[in-house]
Amino acid sequence: MPKIVDHAQRRTEIVHALWQVIYLKGIDGVSFRSVAEAAGISIGRVQHYFPSRSELILEGCRQIVDSAEAAGPEGADASSDPGSAEAVSALREFCFAFIPAGETMCIGASVWYTYVARAVMDEQIADIIRASDRATLELGIRLYRAVCGGDGDAETDDADGTGGTGGTDDSGGTDGEVATAWAMRMIALGKGLAQEVMLDERSAASAKAILEAELEPLVAH
Amino acid sequence: MPKIVDHAQRRTEIVHALWQVIYLKGIDGVSFRSVAEAAGISIGRVQHYFPSRSELILEGCRQIVDSAEAAGPEGADASSDPGSAEAVSALREFCFAFIPAGETMCIGASVWYTYVARAVMDEQIADIIRASDRATLELGIRLYRAVCGGDGDAETDDADGTGGTGGTDDSGGTDGEVATAWAMRMIALGKGLAQEVMLDERSAASAKAILEAELEPLVAH
Repeated sequence: MPKIVDHAQRRTEIVHALWQVIYLKGIDGVSFRSVAEAAGISIGRVQHYFPSRSELILEGCRQIVDSAEAAGPEGADASSDPGSAEAVSALREFCFAFIPAGETMCIGASVWYTYVARAVMDEQIADIIRASDRATLELGIRLYRAVCGGDGDAETDDADGTGGTGGTDDSGGTDGEVATAWAMRMIALGKGLAQEVMLDERSAASAKAILEAELEPLVAH
Repeated sequence: MPKIVDHAQRRTEIVHALWQVIYLKGIDGVSFRSVAEAAGISIGRVQHYFPSRSELILEGCRQIVDSAEAAGPEGADASSDPGSAEAVSALREFCFAFIPAGETMCIGASVWYTYVARAVMDEQIADIIRASDRATLELGIRLYRAVCGGDGDAETDDADGTGGTGGTDDSGGTDGEVATAWAMRMIALGKGLAQEVMLDERSAASAKAILEAELEPLVAH
């Protein structure tokens, strides 16, 4: 079905042009005209694929979220042996996926932060980001368990963390609580380090060394 | 000197109007006109205080950085007894200061992320943020030491972290390396949690519970 592939590709090209516009001029710089110019196509063609400006902006958010998820580990799950080398490397890949590598990814991160800033007043953008973050947390919990064992249902009800043990050691809380607390902490750490790498305050290697130090006790586990 | 006070206040009022404009329209929405309208003053008065648009934008970044620093602990230093209740509460306050509390601070955080996104292509904004982050790291190291002892020079040369032990236990590395690694990790964690609180994915109380769990082993120390 070559025609369908072509359509998907056109939409993606337009979204890439959208990101360029957001990077250079912010979300308020987005118009059919500015995106058409960046893509080198006619305004009509942009409108053909995206009937409204706000739908285009939301699609840009969805695709940037998807591309971050695609960068994560594939096919990893808790079905492998707990503590296997495969499980450890999937968890490591998950943690490292937060860290932007190279200039292109830093531009992507800049667009991402522009969406994050806008989410405070735009519920639709906030919903996309929150759904993605929930999926990331679930994946993190699953990958943690593949390394450390435990197979009760993840207690993501307590994803807020206030009712949990608040600790990350094995001395209290169920497996689910420990896994959730661990994943929440690693994700927040990954996000904070990503920001520092993007601003060139820290190398990607240094961010990965900090994450690796967090993985170490699990691997020794 | 009432006249000087008045000038400082006027500048601050203009900066607050600037933040409103950035929150609603992004940095590219900033003009003498849009800021004057938001402040309810004449364009001429804005220009009197800020001769150029880019100087106004940079001043907004400096003041948002300063306001974050002002929210941190005051007068705390390593001169108090290691492990004293005062030292612990100063370190706690330092960690908690990353977490936005209430709607006003979430709007402030949105403006902050807008600057962070822009820093990728604006070296002047990046310099302001990096200088602030360096000062934050130094303060974090100092406050950690006030809790855990150790008084060699902080090895901020290794702030990049790649040459350090990469660990956070006391089994390797000098006091300086351990303190630096601990502060870097807590700061990154605080930044990541701040993002989640801003997006209403997590309550401020839950973010603080996660930070508190990191402080616990030090206090038991």
